[in-house]
Amino acid sequence: MRKLHPVSEVIEGAVAALGGLDRLPVEEAPLRLAAGRYSAEHVVSSRKLPPYPKSVVDGYAVRAEDVLPASPSSPVKLRLREELVRPGPKPAFQLGSGEAARIETGGYLPDGADAAVPVEDTVERGGSVLIYRRVARWENVSMPGEEYDEGITILERGWRIDGRRLAALALEERESVKVYALKARVLNVGDELLRESAGFPPYTHLLVEEWLRWAGFQVEETRFAGDDPEAIASWLRGGDAWLSVVMGGTSMGGHDYTVKAIESLSPRFMVHGVAVQPGKTACIAVAQDRLVAAISGLPVAALSTLELALKPLLERLGLELPRRPRVKARLARRVTVKTGLAGFARVRLEKRGGELWAVPLMVGGSGSLKSLVAAHGYIAVPEESEGFDEGEEVEVTLF
Amino acid sequence: MRKLHPVSEVIEGAVAALGGLDRLPVEEAPLRLAAGRYSAEHVVSSRKLPPYPKSVVDGYAVRAEDVLPASPSSPVKLRLREELVRPGPKPAFQLGSGEAARIETGGYLPDGADAAVPVEDTVERGGSVLIYRRVARWENVSMPGEEYDEGITILERGWRIDGRRLAALALEERESVKVYALKARVLNVGDELLRESAGFPPYTHLLVEEWLRWAGFQVEETRFAGDDPEAIASWLRGGDAWLSVVMGGTSMGGHDYTVKAIESLSPRFMVHGVAVQPGKTACIAVAQDRLVAAISGLPVAALSTLELALKPLLERLGLELPRRPRVKARLARRVTVKTGLAGFARVRLEKRGGELWAVPLMVGGSGSLKSLVAAHGYIAVPEESEGFDEGEEVEVTLF
Repeated sequence: MRKLHPVSEVIEGAVAALGGLDRLPVEEAPLRLAAGRYSAEHVVSSRKLPPYPKSVVDGYAVRAEDVLPASPSSPVKLRLREELVRPGPKPAFQLGSGEAARIETGGYLPDGADAAVPVEDTVERGGSVLIYRRVARWENVSMPGEEYDEGITILERGWRIDGRRLAALALEERESVKVYALKARVLNVGDELLRESAGFPPYTHLLVEEWLRWAGFQVEETRFAGDDPEAIASWLRGGDAWLSVVMGGTSMGGHDYTVKAIESLSPRFMVHGVAVQPGKTACIAVAQDRLVAAISGLPVAALSTLELALKPLLERLGLELPRRPRVKARLARRVTVKTGLAGFARVRLEKRGGELWAVPLMVGGSGSLKSLVAAHGYIAVPEESEGFDEGEEVEVTLF
Repeated sequence: MRKLHPVSEVIEGAVAALGGLDRLPVEEAPLRLAAGRYSAEHVVSSRKLPPYPKSVVDGYAVRAEDVLPASPSSPVKLRLREELVRPGPKPAFQLGSGEAARIETGGYLPDGADAAVPVEDTVERGGSVLIYRRVARWENVSMPGEEYDEGITILERGWRIDGRRLAALALEERESVKVYALKARVLNVGDELLRESAGFPPYTHLLVEEWLRWAGFQVEETRFAGDDPEAIASWLRGGDAWLSVVMGGTSMGGHDYTVKAIESLSPRFMVHGVAVQPGKTACIAVAQDRLVAAISGLPVAALSTLELALKPLLERLGLELPRRPRVKARLARRVTVKTGLAGFARVRLEKRGGELWAVPLMVGGSGSLKSLVAAHGYIAVPEESEGFDEGEEVEVTLF
């Protein structure tokens, strides 16, 4: 690691080496398992809803021209047909001139009818119905295509599939959808992780796995390896996951076992040293059309690299990642980051006199799980900035 | 349905009848399956990290008093011990006066040592090391509790479990956590759904199921029933899910099969008619300590009830629901809702001259899946408001 690479340079290099969405693996997902996945196809709607004119009132299907003279003082009398039109198939009969048919909300108008009169403007009498108010053509009717129409873009490649898009796919009678096969694997590196005697169990991988699931990945496995470039390289060559995340082994000064392992894959693209703080020892590489992200094993540094580098990289690739909520707040204390480094400052939010304040948590650095647990969110300090002053308005991204 | 009940009244009534978080069913979830669930316990941290003083540099563990006289021109010479301290268990030896021990970043200081000197300020020579710069007590050392400490609130009841909270639970050596057992079942009501000939497949339930999963529910089953109060009531009495969502059968005028079925359960609390637009025929009830939400079978009305009534109800109960991102935008066209009704206006977002505009989608009402698919989010119009004027700044909740 000689110099730190700006995040934008890392993103452009990795995306160029990956070759865009075209080169991502694709699989077919049944609709019930497609939520949260990214579409690998362009889907345009091909039908109309309602398919036929539909009554939006309980009342009578009529011909508008028949009831033109109707008024409260001088009703029009129509012959009542025997059928009751309920929601369901299109009625088989044709409404003749001078006829009315009982219809429920949601029922399709019979051929011949072009309006519906609400029940409150009518009186039924024997085999006929008196209409006390005229209706215009297609009044109280939902027209074909009003609820759903041909030619609507349901999905573009890279769009995240959510409930409303799933509903539209179901309406298109799709049982499955092509999605990107975004499998991920996680490796924890460190001799100390293999020893019980470290004094505490490993925990950062839970944070990383959950982040990956949030970002739409299927986490296939989490393994542990010692400080052994050969073992790490062998793990990297195995499996078929598109993304390999290695935690640990990226430090300078002889402890870069993971970096050596990645180099041994002869990656098409590789940077060691990313301008994010904390997390700057990260290593991002592309080998065999697959992405490798080697990040710190410390929780804050790991999350910082995922949020500030991996997330924008995936977005630049064309994936519509979920958005985190953001709030504006006034900064309670100055936050500084060396110019040239993107910063990841955890903050607590506090209401003070009706105003929202962001209180930076200065408790430790890369390893401070304490600051993550206590924080409500973080401020992303841009590379070109030195930070923010006390009292300045900042945008807080919520966890 | 005689009158519409304001959302706040529905929420207070239902929460009172439910009796708060205390009466929710609880289960034990293994950590790997706990993400996105709501904690049913209060968890406070009980350990320190690092557990012992830890070097944050590669170099030498020393006694600060021994190197007090050290300077670039006059180094202090210390006897070098044979051990190399690496990340892992606490060293078994004690550092004597005048001694130094090689230590890697992350290694725990041996007893006796109270500082670390970085390798760049030293020169090793035979069995000793020359220290060219003095260090203060605990310099280059991370102190116990700096990264993680006793007494931190990891979880309160009702908090949603995310990656950082999972990591903290793992560090506490927890293998599982008590969570609320929020199972949900979905029933689609409508004779027309049982007939192939409706012309299109059912689809709204996919939107509803996905919403329930987003809100932290485990969706156990989705069934279909005809317009038959007895069949609906029998389904409602079955299963052990805490939440039953029934779609359809809540309209006025004889089509309230679902409402009749709910009445037959002798619910402790029940309202039919909720002041949300669309979705006002909804029926919310509490029977046998379980919540029943009968909502429209039409997609926009269903989502409107879920977002504007069920979500705040669950929040009021004490569950920390996920937050949707919100953006401020200028309204491109007036949006009006009858006073007394909370409104759910779908909008598209457009950049116009650098400014974000929200364009209301006036295409149809309750059934307009088209408007949901085309929208970027919605504007929630408060009950007490008639809507918003053209040009007014509004808050758009993003899908």
